[in-house]
Amino acid sequence: MFKLLKTEGGARLGEYETSHGTVKTPVFMNVGTQAAIKGGLSAYDLRTVGCQVELSNTYHLHVRPGDQVVRELGGLHRFMQWDGPILTDSGGFQVFSLAKLRNIREEGVIFNAHTDGHRIFMGPEESVRIQWNLGSDIAMAFDECVANPAPREYVARSCERTTRWLERCKHELARLQELPETVNPGQELWGINQGGTYPDLRIQQMKHIAEFDLPGYAIGGLAVGETNQEMYDIIDAVGPYMPADKPRYLMGVGTPANILEAVARGVDFFDCVMPARNARHGHLFTHEGVINLNNAQYTADSRPVDEGCACPVCRRYSRGYLRHLLRAGEMLGMRLAVFHNLWFYNNLMTEIRVALEEGRFEHFRRENTEKLSRRI
Amino acid sequence: MFKLLKTEGGARLGEYETSHGTVKTPVFMNVGTQAAIKGGLSAYDLRTVGCQVELSNTYHLHVRPGDQVVRELGGLHRFMQWDGPILTDSGGFQVFSLAKLRNIREEGVIFNAHTDGHRIFMGPEESVRIQWNLGSDIAMAFDECVANPAPREYVARSCERTTRWLERCKHELARLQELPETVNPGQELWGINQGGTYPDLRIQQMKHIAEFDLPGYAIGGLAVGETNQEMYDIIDAVGPYMPADKPRYLMGVGTPANILEAVARGVDFFDCVMPARNARHGHLFTHEGVINLNNAQYTADSRPVDEGCACPVCRRYSRGYLRHLLRAGEMLGMRLAVFHNLWFYNNLMTEIRVALEEGRFEHFRRENTEKLSRRI
Repeated sequence: MFKLLKTEGGARLGEYETSHGTVKTPVFMNVGTQAAIKGGLSAYDLRTVGCQVELSNTYHLHVRPGDQVVRELGGLHRFMQWDGPILTDSGGFQVFSLAKLRNIREEGVIFNAHTDGHRIFMGPEESVRIQWNLGSDIAMAFDECVANPAPREYVARSCERTTRWLERCKHELARLQELPETVNPGQELWGINQGGTYPDLRIQQMKHIAEFDLPGYAIGGLAVGETNQEMYDIIDAVGPYMPADKPRYLMGVGTPANILEAVARGVDFFDCVMPARNARHGHLFTHEGVINLNNAQYTADSRPVDEGCACPVCRRYSRGYLRHLLRAGEMLGMRLAVFHNLWFYNNLMTEIRVALEEGRFEHFRRENTEKLSRRI
Repeated sequence: MFKLLKTEGGARLGEYETSHGTVKTPVFMNVGTQAAIKGGLSAYDLRTVGCQVELSNTYHLHVRPGDQVVRELGGLHRFMQWDGPILTDSGGFQVFSLAKLRNIREEGVIFNAHTDGHRIFMGPEESVRIQWNLGSDIAMAFDECVANPAPREYVARSCERTTRWLERCKHELARLQELPETVNPGQELWGINQGGTYPDLRIQQMKHIAEFDLPGYAIGGLAVGETNQEMYDIIDAVGPYMPADKPRYLMGVGTPANILEAVARGVDFFDCVMPARNARHGHLFTHEGVINLNNAQYTADSRPVDEGCACPVCRRYSRGYLRHLLRAGEMLGMRLAVFHNLWFYNNLMTEIRVALEEGRFEHFRRENTEKLSRRI
């Protein structure tokens, strides 16, 4: 259930209720692909970095340890000891990005697992059944994510099929939720908009899936090859056709600047592996831009990573210590870097929400869009 | 300053004062080779696992980031944000175990760094200067650690040289401590007993170094190739010649059973990489013996690692979750496994101290020596 509290231009301040608590939006979801956050962060640490929603991956957990194992151990919340909201993706994106061999039909997709190459079939029903076993709060519909750019004819056929798959997902989840062994009776299904970089295909598919009256809608298939401007144009084009009383989730996006621009265009939910991936490479976010700890200038630098940051890493450790740990290949370096970057992202969302509350989001966006992505 | 509180047979309950707090002995020191604990544990986490003394490595920190850098950043305590006692080894063991090419003379050792192969000279003065820059509470004398077994003639010459090196270490530290830029004015030097597996050489060298009246003495050059029984025999032989009013440190030892047997022989300080190394391989210590989480029987096991353990890992997570994380190669798996194993070791030392206090150490030792090393 989504409550729109306030708007400023296209930007929206809201609240979304799940069976594991209320989410303040706009929100950045923290990615724990295999039921663990990169850098050795636990669910307990997620609370500390200010995470509201944890995101896990259907495909990965199906392959290892198996969704039946997670079900036997009480579902994903108990498995990883996270009692807040969880969103699971549908596996669609991983099927299309990870699998070497694949075969897409109306029924679903046959592909080879990334672990040992064994053949897996996944269609809408399989994806929903896995997510139902995991017991997430938000299950995503099974879709085809097409890399940009792609031929119009292919995209048109693909996104029509994604719509038909959505119908099957909805039916299957409704059927499963009737069963007494349901892990999470409050689990909901969100639909996904596809259509590549073709605004008219996007709009047409969005109109179709809006008719399903789902509790939330995502824009998928962006940040997969197109430019930032193309991405913003698609959001601008499809936004007016997304139900205003439902949350909007821009999948897999992005940089702080991407997030600010997308919030201005009405997006409420985000997720991205960037904070963790950048951390691994020694790229740390600060209020003045991105610093690269591999740079020799930080060797004996006693300042915290970000002098304006209140996270436990910045309160305790110097840039010199973090740089040493990363260069020495110590896991602690990765952990502290990811810890800071996730805190930074979650804190950025808090700053955005406060700016919206105080009616100065446009000012905040103008001040920060360029600055936060700057490399210093 | 060491205070002997109680004895039971050869076992000793005591307290050792350092410039960063009092250590209750017998104690297990937690190894943070490069100023970081393996598995992504921070100094903050060390408090949680019950660590009393952190141990870092002179050689590693000299090579990277450089002891001058650590000094510039305020010394090792501030660098890694650990305000408890720190012991630094002398680099001797690493020089002999890591370096491919080396050349040992009276002055010291020339060898190649493990990072990029550059040539390094380290002698007693260099080792002490590095440790003085790091500002540890306990600095270890520079010694030669000879692998067992070794020819008697070589061991005899080597351990005489180690004694001459100790004298130079003592002079150099005394000189440096006079300087105003001293990082830790409370830094102390401990001597190291060597002599391979030859009891008479061990005793002779111990008599010599006891004359230096140092605040603590270590037995080095054990757990490097000899059997457990040979190790115990050496401790039995050399123990009577170690000053009873000074703490005794058995370097690099060992399994829970080794620790129980050595405590019974009067050892007060221990360190070992085993808890972290075993954790990495999925071997977790429990009160019933060692379990191997790679075993398929733990796939859907909802029990904690050790049902008798109060650590945060056992209070929160299942064996099934830990097994999944380790198999998936998630850092979190490593972190939780190391966290538990270090807690287990530190807790074992607490149990030993309580047993000593209550006059039932012998009973505790008989009950646990075999059980704790059992593979189940």
